[in-house]
Amino acid sequence: MPIALLTDFGTRNYYVGAMKGVILSINPDASIVDITHEIEPQDIVSAAFILRACYRDFPVDTIFLCVVDPGVGSQRRAIIVQTEKHLFVGPDNGLSSFVLNKHTTVHAIENEQYFCQPVSFTFHGRDIFAPVAAHLSKGVGPAEFGARISDPVLLPDTHPWQINEDTIEGTVIHVDRFGNLVTNLPAGLADRIDEIAIAETRVTQLERSYAQAKSNQPFAIVGSAGFIEISVNRGSAAEVLKSSFGTKVTVRLK
Amino acid sequence: MPIALLTDFGTRNYYVGAMKGVILSINPDASIVDITHEIEPQDIVSAAFILRACYRDFPVDTIFLCVVDPGVGSQRRAIIVQTEKHLFVGPDNGLSSFVLNKHTTVHAIENEQYFCQPVSFTFHGRDIFAPVAAHLSKGVGPAEFGARISDPVLLPDTHPWQINEDTIEGTVIHVDRFGNLVTNLPAGLADRIDEIAIAETRVTQLERSYAQAKSNQPFAIVGSAGFIEISVNRGSAAEVLKSSFGTKVTVRLK
Amino acid sequence: MPIALLTDFGTRNYYVGAMKGVILSINPDASIVDITHEIEPQDIVSAAFILRACYRDFPVDTIFLCVVDPGVGSQRRAIIVQTEKHLFVGPDNGLSSFVLNKHTTVHAIENEQYFCQPVSFTFHGRDIFAPVAAHLSKGVGPAEFGARISDPVLLPDTHPWQINEDTIEGTVIHVDRFGNLVTNLPAGLADRIDEIAIAETRVTQLERSYAQAKSNQPFAIVGSAGFIEISVNRGSAAEVLKSSFGTKVTVRLK
Repeated sequence: MPIALLTDFGTRNYYVGAMKGVILSINPDASIVDITHEIEPQDIVSAAFILRACYRDFPVDTIFLCVVDPGVGSQRRAIIVQTEKHLFVGPDNGLSSFVLNKHTTVHAIENEQYFCQPVSFTFHGRDIFAPVAAHLSKGVGPAEFGARISDPVLLPDTHPWQINEDTIEGTVIHVDRFGNLVTNLPAGLADRIDEIAIAETRVTQLERSYAQAKSNQPFAIVGSAGFIEISVNRGSAAEVLKSSFGTKVTVRLK
Repeated sequence: MPIALLTDFGTRNYYVGAMKGVILSINPDASIVDITHEIEPQDIVSAAFILRACYRDFPVDTIFLCVVDPGVGSQRRAIIVQTEKHLFVGPDNGLSSFVLNKHTTVHAIENEQYFCQPVSFTFHGRDIFAPVAAHLSKGVGPAEFGARISDPVLLPDTHPWQINEDTIEGTVIHVDRFGNLVTNLPAGLADRIDEIAIAETRVTQLERSYAQAKSNQPFAIVGSAGFIEISVNRGSAAEVLKSSFGTKVTVRLK
Repeated sequence: MPIALLTDFGTRNYYVGAMKGVILSINPDASIVDITHEIEPQDIVSAAFILRACYRDFPVDTIFLCVVDPGVGSQRRAIIVQTEKHLFVGPDNGLSSFVLNKHTTVHAIENEQYFCQPVSFTFHGRDIFAPVAAHLSKGVGPAEFGARISDPVLLPDTHPWQINEDTIEGTVIHVDRFGNLVTNLPAGLADRIDEIAIAETRVTQLERSYAQAKSNQPFAIVGSAGFIEISVNRGSAAEVLKSSFGTKVTVRLK
């Protein structure tokens, strides 16, 4: 069962190396996989999006070690989220909001016997979360780490706000490396879209693939994360439309 | 047998994580190695160079999963290239041009039973190439995935154009992190070089190592990828010579 | 036993891939872990800091493969450093200065039977250091690679210079991704600090965690690497204080 890492630590420091060292010290057979360490510093919302977009692709029993932790050293709780298929370890700040469902249980991380001592006030990734993930990978159950809790921190819902019968308003919730603008409009809406207004441009083309589109013309497309995206073939929609995280989009429905 | 990943997905998104998750879901024992994910978006030529420069260093039976795929979702084919030692999985766009030889066989990837369903139109790395690589790593043969084909897409030859008896013209085909300019002039030419003209500078020094060279003086050197490079000791030849990918070089032979 | 990689090769080239390929060709069961490849080109001091900050977190018998090597191809020696718990492979340029102690032995790397032939003059990471690390991981002892040496290159000591009874002068030895300024002042000093002068600012707050601090006010904190750091909560101390590697700090003691 792999341990998949998702952090905002970047790759220029010793932080990720230290976490991997701790994991391997506890479980030499751990299979460690990097999702990304390039989350913008302290950007919990982006981390939650990345996690949502790929966790289903991982094997049953994967342990996701997710550390974007602006509250490190404060009273914020540390938690283990257990879904039917996966485990998620990290600070209780909403990072795993989008993996939670009715069948999810959440345990606090409190049992200090599983921590690396002394626990620093600034790097719980190394001192708490990495060793907990490693012990989970060796078969220790979530209940061994602390009491069950019922009120994990949740991010605000990202579903779009429908303002009237024939218009839906959404926002850009992610911009990828290629400049594609991922909105919070679910893929299921695609067939009902007449036009998307974004940043003073009206997008009327809906394409199935990037390659089909005319160059330099923005178009809508069902993206691989399950949301409507705005793209430009062989170009950056973010640049062409001067848009970024948070840009509003207004859909006129057919 | 490792699965070595080479993409232009960058490391800020969920794309690489999703591919790794898919691989491990199919083959939990897969040994996944990152070559790079920092190919410039859609730069097939650079990806082909990186692949050429390091594939020989990998163990027999390594599976190279190479996804730089501007044509995703179009009619471009997907292929498995099999050489005497290695397998290469990716879109049929020339990325594996420089690993092909007489003994190479190429199969189309057509058998949908090995894909992750539903197949998206925008992310075949996750839905087609990763699962195919994972199944190959479990021992499924290339012929199981589709018909043999004889006309894979090839990049233009990068051999330099000899314009007359005592001059050879080449180009810069890669710039590395240190600013070294990798040309397409093969290492075997080194002993015959009298002078290299590049960007209004005449380089006459041929050094064996970076450390031997005088500071700030551009020099030629046999690089580790098997080509002549232009370098500056403890400096960036790209900056000093204002050169980049595609810059012309003219060699005067002894 | 893992092989942990620390280089300045970046992740845009084939260099890291080539090293991993060589390792796996020699020892298919090697467990390869990236610490970082983003050391600034040829910055041995930063690499030594990163190594010092995390090597203790790794399992006994970990092999650290550290290649920041401006002297590649010159007469600089190649060495294996053996401490009570770990092995360090790399050029003899001070990179492992801070892991050395009385119980450390150092061997030269001279035995060409363990190299990848032909050895290039520009990429010993692939041709010498990676294969040596791989052979070490298969159980070959350090003495098999060359003679014991007693005079490895050492970096200058980074302990601060105490100028009088109630003041200590130090410097910033590292800036992390969050803009935290890591000084060379040991954590043990924390209780004796009255005030830290840095870049025309006087820092008087000592906090236990980032979250405790008032926004935008620089404060001192005991960092996870065992040194005093200067930080700004949810901001970059490097930007706020216009400070960077080498900036002087003066501590007034209580």
